[in-house]
This record gives sequence, structure tokens and C-alpha cells, in this order.
Amino acid sequence: MSGPSVQLLAHTAEPERTVALAARLCYSARGVADLAAGLSEAEVESLLEKLLAMGHLSALEHAQFTLGVEGISRACSHQLVRHRVASYSQQSQRYVALRRVQAVVPPSIEDRPELAAAFRRALEQAWALYGRLVDEGVPAEDARYLLPNACETKLVVSMNARELRHFFSLRLCRRAQWEVRALARAMLGAVEAVAPRLFRGAGPGCLAGSCPEGAYSCGQAAEVRRELAEGVRRDP
Amino acid sequence: MSGPSVQLLAHTAEPERTVALAARLCYSARGVADLAAGLSEAEVESLLEKLLAMGHLSALEHAQFTLGVEGISRACSHQLVRHRVASYSQQSQRYVALRRVQAVVPPSIEDRPELAAAFRRALEQAWALYGRLVDEGVPAEDARYLLPNACETKLVVSMNARELRHFFSLRLCRRAQWEVRALARAMLGAVEAVAPRLFRGAGPGCLAGSCPEGAYSCGQAAEVRRELAEGVRRDP
Amino acid sequence: MSGPSVQLLAHTAEPERTVALAARLCYSARGVADLAAGLSEAEVESLLEKLLAMGHLSALEHAQFTLGVEGISRACSHQLVRHRVASYSQQSQRYVALRRVQAVVPPSIEDRPELAAAFRRALEQAWALYGRLVDEGVPAEDARYLLPNACETKLVVSMNARELRHFFSLRLCRRAQWEVRALARAMLGAVEAVAPRLFRGAGPGCLAGSCPEGAYSCGQAAEVRRELAEGVRRDP
Amino acid sequence: MSGPSVQLLAHTAEPERTVALAARLCYSARGVADLAAGLSEAEVESLLEKLLAMGHLSALEHAQFTLGVEGISRACSHQLVRHRVASYSQQSQRYVALRRVQAVVPPSIEDRPELAAAFRRALEQAWALYGRLVDEGVPAEDARYLLPNACETKLVVSMNARELRHFFSLRLCRRAQWEVRALARAMLGAVEAVAPRLFRGAGPGCLAGSCPEGAYSCGQAAEVRRELAEGVRRDP
Repeated sequence: MSGPSVQLLAHTAEPERTVALAARLCYSARGVADLAAGLSEAEVESLLEKLLAMGHLSALEHAQFTLGVEGISRACSHQLVRHRVASYSQQSQRYVALRRVQAVVPPSIEDRPELAAAFRRALEQAWALYGRLVDEGVPAEDARYLLPNACETKLVVSMNARELRHFFSLRLCRRAQWEVRALARAMLGAVEAVAPRLFRGAGPGCLAGSCPEGAYSCGQAAEVRRELAEGVRRDP
Repeated sequence: MSGPSVQLLAHTAEPERTVALAARLCYSARGVADLAAGLSEAEVESLLEKLLAMGHLSALEHAQFTLGVEGISRACSHQLVRHRVASYSQQSQRYVALRRVQAVVPPSIEDRPELAAAFRRALEQAWALYGRLVDEGVPAEDARYLLPNACETKLVVSMNARELRHFFSLRLCRRAQWEVRALARAMLGAVEAVAPRLFRGAGPGCLAGSCPEGAYSCGQAAEVRRELAEGVRRDP
Repeated sequence: MSGPSVQLLAHTAEPERTVALAARLCYSARGVADLAAGLSEAEVESLLEKLLAMGHLSALEHAQFTLGVEGISRACSHQLVRHRVASYSQQSQRYVALRRVQAVVPPSIEDRPELAAAFRRALEQAWALYGRLVDEGVPAEDARYLLPNACETKLVVSMNARELRHFFSLRLCRRAQWEVRALARAMLGAVEAVAPRLFRGAGPGCLAGSCPEGAYSCGQAAEVRRELAEGVRRDP
Repeated sequence: MSGPSVQLLAHTAEPERTVALAARLCYSARGVADLAAGLSEAEVESLLEKLLAMGHLSALEHAQFTLGVEGISRACSHQLVRHRVASYSQQSQRYVALRRVQAVVPPSIEDRPELAAAFRRALEQAWALYGRLVDEGVPAEDARYLLPNACETKLVVSMNARELRHFFSLRLCRRAQWEVRALARAMLGAVEAVAPRLFRGAGPGCLAGSCPEGAYSCGQAAEVRRELAEGVRRDP
């Protein structure tokens, strides 16, 4: 139950420079090769800062990141794949038979020994019957109807930097569920490591001063800020 | 276990005429009002036929259909929401506590009494423990980790006619899973009833003569054709 | 030079009720038919208000609007079609020969008689040579390379209410170009007429109190508010 | 008039291996790191071949390519940006004043000296008046209404391999316009150079044996095949 594991598998080469170059082209009479050659590190820095300050995020789409995600429940992947500006390849429960218990136990259950024990017994029973069904010739794609939302899944997900920022703004909010928040923190840690300037300030609106949830705000902006500073930036 | 229930909730007014008008505009010097006034039923018919014959499907996007879907499993909804050119509002397992067993039993299990009985017992146990967790203060959003893929869900889905045809081409194929195929048949029945000419010939590539699955073809084009003729067109 | 003409051609039936029903389903244990039957006008009102206040806009996607747009320049349509969550059918300059001058003259030129006269002469000359090229057998798709950005175009565009609100937030901003702003005002007028509650408060961020452009803000929120109140709501 | 210039600016690292890894994950019980370590070149080759043969193209979305495009007309860029599953940063005619004639002359005009001369004179006149307008204080964003479709533009475009294949299927067809076909050939040359196996057989349906245009087919599949073999593969 160690939580989501996220691994950066691949990404657009020089993501920050690529975004800055694209942004620069929009406002310049010079050619692509010329612009590419003449772009200093300081200009990349200042262009990215300006884009984020103005909310002109379309150039961020030129940087795409591909992540391997493991150790999340199907409940969590169901939330993840609802983000439509992204690409997913998910381990299939139709084609892959899942012989041993691999499941996520929510902390609210883990914290209460009696309930946790009952929960684990239920997992054992579900997998035992699943195995029996498969052994008796039921296709894996049908036997899986028995498997719980807790069942672990794996996927490869690609998102561009703009969509990642949007994802972080929703899923790092304290109103998001704990598991998808943990996933978002791990994803932010992975992409920040290679493109810190594309993800500066990424997170819910409250980080920048105003919560968009209005009357439904959690009122805990300070805690969100602290969590991100500690949980992601130091120890992804 | 009566299978997916699909209800057409709303759609673009005069979907066939709207599509034909848009297609006409592309190739005409006349104005919108003028074109709209002068479009006869015969022209609508012939324009739609031409669009489908040429595969020029972009005008079909102007007709959107909103469907209420019930009686499908979470396994099935997970497949449905992977279609990204569509809009979904799904009953939340985070906010709605599901007190009684509502689940889909796969036919391959239903057909074998002993396995079916074991499957149903497992469902009863899962829901009993779920109820206990909720009663003891575990949030519904965590208790649901216990609920199986078989658990029924409801959603409202909107797709335009082009995306619906794409959905049908994949999900009415015999390589698709039985439940999403049943859903696709029910969806086709619902939209055909109000816009038969937009969905003429909708289904997998084999209906039009060539299976795109190549070496992986099921080789059963005739049966697909028969199923659609009987299952959808007569008795949705 | 009467500006953009926008005509609502079709839309999802009962757009406000459809959106409210979808939003309701997410948080209810009841079935679709049951919900649909029991939804009062007051509930529709209060649900829509709540969605907008919380920024939970996904249910707004279930309402799609199809508009006929005329009297805009190709410069303007180039900006419009950059919005990707939408469907377009545009009058083709490849297939439709444009024999007479039909063009948009920017106000900054119109206001200066000498420049306006020179501008119009240039238009006449462009169309004259265009006509000669077509008469001498050059395909319309090549002769059009001569036609200016000012050249008028027509298109049918479909967008859902969520994307329309996003479009309005960008294109009703005073930093947007005058022509696409005029188009946005006309589009807002057309959709507001049938679904006022879906478009309440639509416009740039400054309408709701905070300009997202930061240091690049025009600082004229009050004027934007006045323009919208007068220009759209009274006299679309 | 040397035609479109396309430069590969950046792309997902190891695009073929990344796609193969994602595809593999769907059908394997093994973890991401384990799969990544164990993937031989021969397996990459055979996985990609299988994906293309079956038309299972979703894994191709994990490889994104960023291209710098120059030397195309605004007529051509208008066609390009209609592809919605892509990201664009285009040189702005609002912010960049275009002082000298830079324009694309269609071959059908270039080939006829008298028409070509008249065409060039018209370009000179357009740019001369454009310069005068800007000099007299008309904003560049308004003066550009005079500039013709022939006017050259620059842009940075990012597309994933699946969308690129779709783009090539439409735009390498002989029914597409000559300029966007030339652009497509140059784009295919650029991406093939780094990921030949992702773009094997890319092009219109006729390359693989069946033209989807039906009665509207050009009937020249052999020529399309020859052009691609000569024009792209040998000398991009």
C-alpha cells in the first residue's frame, strides 16, 4: 500500500526551450532556424515567465510527457481517464488474468484494524472466486466483473504541459479524492524534475491567491501550499 | 439482468436537415438563410447519401445526441468513457451511497447455475460489508473500493453523429466485449429512430465489405449483419 | 460593412433542462426517467446557478448550439477555427468562385476617407484580376491566392455551452481583435436568447472581478461590462 | 517559390520504443520498469508491425513530433489548422508587420508568364498599400486585411504519430490541394527520418489497396505510390 508509483518514460526533447521557441515565433518576423539558434537561456526563462503570468498557455502544448503509472486503483484510473486531452494505454482486465490480490486499501479503512481485516478478507474471497471462475473456463473478461474498484491497475499516460497544469489545478485541490491527489503529486514531482519552469506554481487556484470553488472552498490554501512544498518538491 | 437501457433525452433539432445545410454551405455562394429556406427533403436525402458515400463526415458533427444510459456495469462505463470526443455526466460513487445490490452478471456466468450462485453470494457479501463500512463512518468514496466492476452505474452521454458512427464501427464489432456491444446496439436503436439517414450503414467495416482487423478478423461479417438487422432495427 | 451576422440554426432541445438533468444524475441514486419527470423549473434554475458558482462546467457540454455566421473576414474566421472543441463547415474558396467584391473594411481604415478609398480600389483590383484568372482557366482554388484577408466568408459552427463560455471569456476581452469581438457579441446574443441561464455572466474574467491578464490588463472592466449590457443584451 | 520548408524541432525521445512499451503494457501482467528493461529491438519491430496491421493506433499517440513550418501560404495554413488534434503556434499578422513581399505563387499561375507577371504586380501593390497604411498609423492587425491568401506564414505544429498518419491519409491524397500535399510530403519526410516504423505505409487509403473516396476516386493509386516513393522517401 505504498501509493501511486510514477515514472517518467519519455518526453519532448528540451521541453522548455521548445515551448519558448514556439511562443517566440508568434511575435517575430525571423525564421525558425534563426530563432532556434539565437535563443539564450535567459530568454527561455523570461519567455516562460511571461507566458505563465499572462495565462497564454497554448505554447505549453508543444511539450508532451509520457508517464508510467502503477499502484493505483481502478477507482483512481476511472478518474484519470476522464481527462480527455491525453493519451492512455491501460493494462487490460480483459486480456490479462490477475491471479494474486493486488489492491489499494483506503487510509480511512487501513486506520481501523477491524475494518481493515474485514476489507482484506473480502479481497481474498473476491480473488479466490475470480481464480475459480477462470479455472472453470469463464473468460478473464467476464470473471473480472467480480474484482473490486480497489484492484490495482497500470497505465502509460501522455499529456502535454498545458493539460498537466489543468490536471494539477483540479486534482491537487483538497476537494479532489485522496488517491488521485496522491497520483497528481507524484506526476508533478516527475515532470518538475525535468521542466521546473513549465510547472512553476502548478496547482489549485488558491496557490495564486483566489479559490475558484467560491462558497465550496475548503478554506485551507495555506495547507495546500505547505503540502506541495513538502510532499512534492522535496520528496516526490 | 435485462441489459443496458438507453433513452434519448435530447438532440439537435432537425438533425438531418442541420447536417445537410452545413454540408451545402461549403459548396455554395448563397447565404445561410437562403440555403436554409430552399433545402427540400429530396436534397437533404441526396446530400446525406453523398457525404456518407465519400466519407466526408465532418458535417455530421453538427448533430449532437444526448442519451441517458442505465443498467450497465462499471466495467462497461470504463470502456465507454475512453471515447474522448464526447461529454459524460456519471453517477458518482463518491457522493451516492449504493445501499442495495445492483449489478450486471455476465452471461457466461449466468449460464452456469453453480457459478452464478457463487457470484451472487459474492455480490451480497460485498454489499453487506460496504453497508457496514458506511454505517461505521467510512466515507462512501472509500467504502466503494470494495464494490465490484459488476456494479451498475448510470450516465448521461452526448456524442455527435460522426463520433457515434466511429463508436459503432468499433463497438458493434464482434471483437468488442458483449456488454459494450449491447450498449452500442441500444444506442444505435435510439438515435436511428430520429435520424435514420445519419446512421445508415453504421457498424463495423465488414458491413460495407472489408474488415479492417486483417488477420485478426472474426470472419463473421454475415452474422454481424444479421444481428444488426434483427437486434437493433426491429427491436431496439 | 454591417458586421458579423449570426443566426441560430439549431440547438439541443431544452438546453437548460438537459444540462440540469445531467448535473443532477451525478449526485442522485434515482434513475434517469424518474429524475427527468421530477425536475421542476425552480430546480433547473437552482442547479444551473450552483454549477456556474462552483465552476463545475462539464454538464454544460450536453447543450450544443449550431450557428450560421456570415459577413466576417477570412482574418476573423482564421481566429475562430483555432478553437478546437467545436465543429466547422466553411464556405470553400476552392470550390466556390467569388465573382464580386465582398469584403470587410476595418473601422480604423473606414474612418479615414483617403485610406478607405485606396483600400477599396485595391479590393476592386484584386477581384478584377481574380476574375481574369478564373476566366483564363486558372482553377478557383489557385486564383483565390490573390484574394485578401478582408474577403468575406460564411460558416456553420457548432459549439457546446461550456466551450462557448470559454470562447466568450477570451474573445469578449478588450485585448481580442475588434472583429472577433463583434462576432463573439453576436454569438452571445444568439445563444442567450434561448438559454439565458447557461450564459449568465459569460465574458472575460474581469466581469466577475479579476482580470487574468495580470500586468497586461486593459484596466477597463467597467467599460467591458457596459458594452455587454448595451451591445448584446439589448440589441444583438 | 521553393515550397514548404519543414524542420523537425523536437520529438518524444525514442518514439518507437515508447509506443511499443505502451502497447505491450496493455497485454502484460508485468510492471513498467520490468517491461521497459526487457524490450528488445526485435520486439519493438514486431509490436509496431502488429499495431499497424490491426489498426490499433491509440498507442501511437504517445509519440509527439514538433515541426517548424515555413514558406507556406495563409491559404495552406488555414487548411492545416483545421486539424484539431494538434497544437499550433503561428506567426501573428496582428503583431508582426510584414514589410516585404513574401508570397506563394501557385504553379498554375507561375507556368503562364503573363498571368504570373500580373499576379506579381498585384502582390507588389498590395504590399505597397499595406506599408503605407502602417506608416500612416493604421494598426498592423488592420492593415493586414489587405494582404492576400498567398502571403507566407510560419508556424510551429505538434502532432502525435496517430494524428500525423490521419493527416497524411487525407492530405497526401490527390484530391487534396497541391500546396497542402507538398506540406504533407515534407512533414512525412521529416518524421520518417527519425521514426520510420511509425510511419510505414502512411498515406491515402489507396496505398493499402482500397480508395475510400468511392465514386470520387482519382483512380491514380499507382501514381500516388510512385510520388511518395520518389518525392518523400528519397529526397524530402
